[in-house]
Amino acid sequence: MFVRAQVDYAHRAASSFASGGCGVRKLSAVPVFPRHQELLQNTRSPLGSRLAPARLQATSTSEMRESVRVSPMLLEEPVPAILEDIDTLVLDCDGVLWQGEDLIEGSKEALIKLREAGKQLLFVTNNSSKSRAMYVEKFRKLGIHAEKEEIIGASYAAAAWLKNQNFDKKVFSIGDVGVSLELEELGIEVASAEGAEGGPGCNVDQFKELKVDEDIGAVVVGCDQAFDYRKLCYASVAIQQGAAFVATNADSADSIGGRLMPGAGAMVEAIAAAAATRPTLVAGKPSPWLLQLLRTEFGVDFSRACVVGDRLDTDIQMGVDAGAKLNVLTLSGVSTWADVEAVQEAGEGAVPHVAVPTLSYLVG
Amino acid sequence: MFVRAQVDYAHRAASSFASGGCGVRKLSAVPVFPRHQELLQNTRSPLGSRLAPARLQATSTSEMRESVRVSPMLLEEPVPAILEDIDTLVLDCDGVLWQGEDLIEGSKEALIKLREAGKQLLFVTNNSSKSRAMYVEKFRKLGIHAEKEEIIGASYAAAAWLKNQNFDKKVFSIGDVGVSLELEELGIEVASAEGAEGGPGCNVDQFKELKVDEDIGAVVVGCDQAFDYRKLCYASVAIQQGAAFVATNADSADSIGGRLMPGAGAMVEAIAAAAATRPTLVAGKPSPWLLQLLRTEFGVDFSRACVVGDRLDTDIQMGVDAGAKLNVLTLSGVSTWADVEAVQEAGEGAVPHVAVPTLSYLVG
Repeated sequence: MFVRAQVDYAHRAASSFASGGCGVRKLSAVPVFPRHQELLQNTRSPLGSRLAPARLQATSTSEMRESVRVSPMLLEEPVPAILEDIDTLVLDCDGVLWQGEDLIEGSKEALIKLREAGKQLLFVTNNSSKSRAMYVEKFRKLGIHAEKEEIIGASYAAAAWLKNQNFDKKVFSIGDVGVSLELEELGIEVASAEGAEGGPGCNVDQFKELKVDEDIGAVVVGCDQAFDYRKLCYASVAIQQGAAFVATNADSADSIGGRLMPGAGAMVEAIAAAAATRPTLVAGKPSPWLLQLLRTEFGVDFSRACVVGDRLDTDIQMGVDAGAKLNVLTLSGVSTWADVEAVQEAGEGAVPHVAVPTLSYLVG
Repeated sequence: MFVRAQVDYAHRAASSFASGGCGVRKLSAVPVFPRHQELLQNTRSPLGSRLAPARLQATSTSEMRESVRVSPMLLEEPVPAILEDIDTLVLDCDGVLWQGEDLIEGSKEALIKLREAGKQLLFVTNNSSKSRAMYVEKFRKLGIHAEKEEIIGASYAAAAWLKNQNFDKKVFSIGDVGVSLELEELGIEVASAEGAEGGPGCNVDQFKELKVDEDIGAVVVGCDQAFDYRKLCYASVAIQQGAAFVATNADSADSIGGRLMPGAGAMVEAIAAAAATRPTLVAGKPSPWLLQLLRTEFGVDFSRACVVGDRLDTDIQMGVDAGAKLNVLTLSGVSTWADVEAVQEAGEGAVPHVAVPTLSYLVG
């Protein structure tokens, strides 16, 4: 599937490149500036393998304009004008602003410049470990500013969906505290889930005796760093008893220190296998529910929005689904330029308009 | 895909039914004897849903003989003659001989009769929690007899595969003790895996510091009742470092007390998601490797063998792949008669020749 979109900025950036202006390269196996080499190489593929570089047919600016396919570009120098027609930036956090607890170089300054330019900023993260209030605190500790109303986490999206369904039972939550905090803030009761904790494992006899609160109407699954077999049993039985199976997100891993650290997707797959069923809802990117939230609750007009993220299958997929004016992949997280080429080559999956080493390349 | 097979026994059993002899029913939504109702209903579908009953075209014995499709039959009374041309029985354990720690009614007596009839018995289980020696002990405790040489567990199959590959590094093992015991018995070193245990979880900082023994050449994954996030991280990083990813089996759950208890497949899916890769080998049923083991190491001639199991996707699939003379589904475990109908209806997946409430129906 190739994306059909107007690519004015592609035209502009490509013209600029041709005239010796801002550095921009079309999709090809090009050498990149030495200082970008590490970022481009030191990111693991979420697709499991690096495929051959894509072969693009379009070779001139006019052909690019005429093409209905997105021809992703790798920006090697900042192109501030790229955001001229953009009112709103929908920004991912992990892999865009920071990696774990470390700010990505230039992201702090980039956010300041974007605010000075009057852009609406929305921080949309599939990371479910923190509530919105906890994110405000994380931003503050890293020396950057965000309002709670600018943050949409996958935990919030999951809780908002249950609220939207007039859910009135209890939730068994697998996930860090962010999940329960968001549920409770929307008035949804989180089950204490006696029997889901307190043991090193769960053998056959313990499983037989496992009683799951009949009043649990949903299991909400985010990344849980205290995930274990007993929780897996409890969640699976609750779902077998009829509880809805809500995943905050399906991200299988995050890039931490150059390695993949297991994400919510790993827990979701374990539970899906154990209970022999797929999730009722995946709340985070790229779900239609999240797009609906962004449009209706946050007033995003995607025809004047730029989506920025480090994953093709979540961030860029959401931007593509929304028909966003501009989709930007930062190469400071999970997906690599080789992944972009592979997706383009395969003709399946979401392709960004532009890839940049870091967020700062959008603002100069 | 429909199975092409000779169905002499089907002919015989069906004739017998028509003449008012042994009870046997063809695939249809028939009432079953009251004492079977519970067994037939109290088993969960591994397919996640119960579909409409299959509609079979064959209505007479001659049509059944002519059909190239297997027309599975539900036996309601014992048909001892069904094993006339059978030398070897390849028997699953969980769901066939026992459920958890409880013997299934009649299985002890059935095994005695099969031995008296001079049949070769092989107990082939995907359960990786026990070594062969531990299984001998479990058989003994339940009052039945088996030799170590008659038992082929998924742990043994995984260890035998590594041995066959001339594997000379260490293994990180996720699974109960059965996995390590089988590895060690074949002279394969099991890594102590410092860092994979000892903490309640694994946060970002701990993940960054996580050092995985570079000498680990394979991660072997079975069902681990002490599975947790830290083990998931360790296994994922070992695989990212290049270790082979060996699953003892892919069974996602076992039926325990009428509910699905998570199996090795749940752990395998979590690790596969986290490391963004599929297993190098799934050792248990229905892998080609296991068939090879059965044929070469245990001398099984499948043209004179009967495969008995409680799961369509593992046991019966293996029998179908092997071209076994007779594939028998026991309805005392995971798969149900409705699952058989659904698979037949869909035209995809393995269909048994015969379904029986319990093993004892094969011997009377």
